[in-house]
Amino acid sequence: MAKKQVGVAIAKSNVFLGQFRKPLVQNMSKSAMKESFKNKLKIIPLGGLQEIGRNMTIFEYGNDILIVDMGLQFPDEDMPGVDYIIPDISYLKGKESKIRGVVITHGHYDHIGAVPHIMGSIGNPPLYCSEMTRGIIVKRQEDFEDKAPLNIHSVKKGDRIRLGVFEVEFFHVSHTIPGSFGLAIKTPVGNIVHTGDFKFDHSPVIDQPSDIATIARIGSEGVLALMSDSTDSQTEGYSISEGTIGKTLGGIIEHAPGRVIVATFAALVSRIQTVIENAERVGRKVAVEGYSMKTNVEIAQKLGYLRVRKGTLIPINKVNDYPDNKVVIICTGAQGESNAALMRIVNNEHRFVKIKKGDVAVFSSSVIPGNERTVQGVKDTLYHRGAKVIHYKMMDVHAGGHARQEDLKMMMNLIKPKYLIPVHGTYFMLKIHGELANEVGIKDENILIGENGAAFEFDGQGRGRVSTERVPTNYIMVDGLGVGDVGEVVLRDRQLLAKDGMFTIVVIIDSKTKKIIGTPQITSRGFIFVKENFDLVNATKRVVEKVVREKTAGDTMINWDYVKNNIRESVGSFLFTKTERRPMVLPVVIEV
Amino acid sequence: MAKKQVGVAIAKSNVFLGQFRKPLVQNMSKSAMKESFKNKLKIIPLGGLQEIGRNMTIFEYGNDILIVDMGLQFPDEDMPGVDYIIPDISYLKGKESKIRGVVITHGHYDHIGAVPHIMGSIGNPPLYCSEMTRGIIVKRQEDFEDKAPLNIHSVKKGDRIRLGVFEVEFFHVSHTIPGSFGLAIKTPVGNIVHTGDFKFDHSPVIDQPSDIATIARIGSEGVLALMSDSTDSQTEGYSISEGTIGKTLGGIIEHAPGRVIVATFAALVSRIQTVIENAERVGRKVAVEGYSMKTNVEIAQKLGYLRVRKGTLIPINKVNDYPDNKVVIICTGAQGESNAALMRIVNNEHRFVKIKKGDVAVFSSSVIPGNERTVQGVKDTLYHRGAKVIHYKMMDVHAGGHARQEDLKMMMNLIKPKYLIPVHGTYFMLKIHGELANEVGIKDENILIGENGAAFEFDGQGRGRVSTERVPTNYIMVDGLGVGDVGEVVLRDRQLLAKDGMFTIVVIIDSKTKKIIGTPQITSRGFIFVKENFDLVNATKRVVEKVVREKTAGDTMINWDYVKNNIRESVGSFLFTKTERRPMVLPVVIEV
Repeated sequence: MAKKQVGVAIAKSNVFLGQFRKPLVQNMSKSAMKESFKNKLKIIPLGGLQEIGRNMTIFEYGNDILIVDMGLQFPDEDMPGVDYIIPDISYLKGKESKIRGVVITHGHYDHIGAVPHIMGSIGNPPLYCSEMTRGIIVKRQEDFEDKAPLNIHSVKKGDRIRLGVFEVEFFHVSHTIPGSFGLAIKTPVGNIVHTGDFKFDHSPVIDQPSDIATIARIGSEGVLALMSDSTDSQTEGYSISEGTIGKTLGGIIEHAPGRVIVATFAALVSRIQTVIENAERVGRKVAVEGYSMKTNVEIAQKLGYLRVRKGTLIPINKVNDYPDNKVVIICTGAQGESNAALMRIVNNEHRFVKIKKGDVAVFSSSVIPGNERTVQGVKDTLYHRGAKVIHYKMMDVHAGGHARQEDLKMMMNLIKPKYLIPVHGTYFMLKIHGELANEVGIKDENILIGENGAAFEFDGQGRGRVSTERVPTNYIMVDGLGVGDVGEVVLRDRQLLAKDGMFTIVVIIDSKTKKIIGTPQITSRGFIFVKENFDLVNATKRVVEKVVREKTAGDTMINWDYVKNNIRESVGSFLFTKTERRPMVLPVVIEV
Repeated sequence: MAKKQVGVAIAKSNVFLGQFRKPLVQNMSKSAMKESFKNKLKIIPLGGLQEIGRNMTIFEYGNDILIVDMGLQFPDEDMPGVDYIIPDISYLKGKESKIRGVVITHGHYDHIGAVPHIMGSIGNPPLYCSEMTRGIIVKRQEDFEDKAPLNIHSVKKGDRIRLGVFEVEFFHVSHTIPGSFGLAIKTPVGNIVHTGDFKFDHSPVIDQPSDIATIARIGSEGVLALMSDSTDSQTEGYSISEGTIGKTLGGIIEHAPGRVIVATFAALVSRIQTVIENAERVGRKVAVEGYSMKTNVEIAQKLGYLRVRKGTLIPINKVNDYPDNKVVIICTGAQGESNAALMRIVNNEHRFVKIKKGDVAVFSSSVIPGNERTVQGVKDTLYHRGAKVIHYKMMDVHAGGHARQEDLKMMMNLIKPKYLIPVHGTYFMLKIHGELANEVGIKDENILIGENGAAFEFDGQGRGRVSTERVPTNYIMVDGLGVGDVGEVVLRDRQLLAKDGMFTIVVIIDSKTKKIIGTPQITSRGFIFVKENFDLVNATKRVVEKVVREKTAGDTMINWDYVKNNIRESVGSFLFTKTERRPMVLPVVIEV
């Protein structure tokens, strides 16, 4: 059945073949087709393997390239100043004309965040995604005015589109944002299934449960490889249903004596629905606060994903018009982000909302590693100001959006793939996912643990392997307007500067006498408080003068670089002896 | 019964009165005693309240001061370069002669870490602690050679010592290090109990269970206030027993096909005992690796706290002499600390131990907030090198050392205090602890939630309150050899430098013509990679030249500070326009 559909007209599709920029495979001659089948399918992950974020995968067969997702990654704590990281697309240079299209699984930034930076560089190929995803991509694109407009098409679950030799079927999966897709990709060497981010949720509050019947049907058609979400592969059991969260949140919203302030991720549209439903049940109004959350609510509401009764939503400046026990505020800032709505509220910087006794604050999200201390600080301040705080460790007020171990096994049992390719996760998560595959009977040699840049290759005989070659997958860092101009050197300097600060020494040399004019000038930041350490500064000046005197004595041709290096070393070790710190020492020697 | 013992000779004590530096209260006249009773007892927390770490508390009554603990705190991620933070002892300045002694509850760094920095400054008063604690303090003191030797005395559980008006009884509590004490402090206004760090563990592997009978007896004598450990007040239920951990670890050690590498905290001596016992049971040798862990094992073994059969411990260079399934390695580095033993092993930098297929690595510790990503990276590398990884989220391979909610309630029920003073914890943790006190019947007005620097005051009529006055409790930061010289300014500069780097501009001015000699010199680090951005650097030079030209035109008396400020502002906003980054701009203008 699968074979029959390759190359035939696409039923149920709202995407017409005429939209495609490139000639389609069904126009190829039979002999060319045969030739093409000799080629391998290469699935090249440019990001998202052995890491979390910047998900982007290339499917390449002969002259056709299909791209799945185009995400960003948030920086580690050792990358100060970096806004985010996007995939390295060097491999696509010169192959722009082969790109038949880009398919986006869902609207989270780790899947769409690199779109504004990359689409222009690869010739703006057509982009396919759900209406919800489209809304978010288009909204974000407004922040990048100088970029060419996107060639973007929305698709529905059940749609099939042809992109070169590839046929992509979109199937519905439960996640925390509406319009999340898994992909069944028919290729000349077999069917590949990509789950996107998913969980099985039999009582989601928004959208439908993951489409088990369709997934089973796709599985029954024969699947060569399953690329499946490993983000939560470390957690035993089944995912918690959003419906269960709804019960707990519902109880809180019903019984709280005053206002309920729910902080969560802006992108967690399902949680917003949960809160709205429960507020409506007990007759509370809901104010949504935080730019990105308001944007997402707007998009989801416009597209009919969010069910809200007329009159439920109120603007934030109206919250004080209602009794406290008739109000719910849902806002961004559950991670303690410094510019989010919750922070402004907690720090008494919000125009309309101040925390008071009787408020109940709910942290309805997990804490992203690295944010624990900040979040603890926010909770402390809330308590200080008289609020009660409830977080996910105390009650079931959060459910993750990713499949847990039993869900992952269920997906494998439904799809029955020959190969499992764990995606989205650190090496550890991928390996654990692989161990689960063992448990459902997939053999070790059919579990392909990959890495960014290494192609998963499949030949015409259904054999798969991980290539030993690597395409570039460097971190491309975005910092302000710069993309890729912050590299290893700049980052290392920032780390050093953060640790012990810097120490600049300016020495002016008389070009005739080769002696220092005046005294060396010292500027220091982040090292010691200079105003309280005149002795150390003066002693350092003596060190500099000594170095200059000794290293220029007797010489007619003075190598100033040599003198500078000597100043750097002498001052560095002098300061270390005195302080056991190693500031960055920057000598500037100028002859006048 | 409590009253009777005040002022009488101390039974069971190995600390004799003759050791005390100061006259004792029993030598005071009755009228002086009476006068003294008019005073309030002040309990002043210098650290450890509304924060984790740097625990230090002052008990002050009349002319007598008793100090409990003297710990350090590890810095937050927004304090780059800082080694640790110690308490601010400004309040003790001028009161040195009143200090009757220092009592240390146990040997963890958050309770002893400030000893080398503070003891000398307060006149080296006598210090009382268990033998285990003494061993660790003395060992650490070796790193501070220039400090005067400590006047240190070891005490045993059941001992009572008199320090001025205070009588301190030491009672045994379970924690993760042997020789942990709680304190029952008799004061002229009533008895105060300080739990130190504790948990109830009915099957500890080292030492004895917390001494419930003694705690009950102390409670029956009447307790005015209980100061109790709030570190784990957020967790429901009872603590997990070290014995339970032993069973899980035992199973792993018994069934692992090859070597077992257990990473934990150096200070978790009970865990080391657990590993040794289980290794002995199945005939494995144990190698201990990591400087601080080896030190602790040595001290604990010498004092008889650690039970090890002859021949069990082997040096790390002998591990390869035994079959893999006969070896356990226990080492530091469970937090991914860059210089710890585990890191050297994982990074193939260890002389004798390299990870290989068949190894089982156990992370037998919780992950301290902020270290999650690093620890995940270590686990990934272990998997990469072929090891299996087991951590506390997967199996019960770690138990915390702090009382959970049911333990805290049990302590309150045993002590039956009039007042509860939650200590050791963020505001949130203290408040939760207070809510637990409500549950066991302590009234709201008798729950004293305090803050560093604010005295808990008790009058002669058993009335307690939190003072509205504050003594200084600034962060005293230790960075290399400097103590307290890194302040707000230096830290803020480090943060700025980390974010966008720095940009130094040196301008040499001819003192006669007031014109720039040559061209401005630019040195930049952590901002952009200058070698690839000549255009930006040259454009910035033009900006500088323009500012100098305009701001010096027509003036006879030039204010160079004004010119410098103008350079800083113009260059700063020029660079922001071009890059959306804000490096620290440091102009140096020199007239020659």
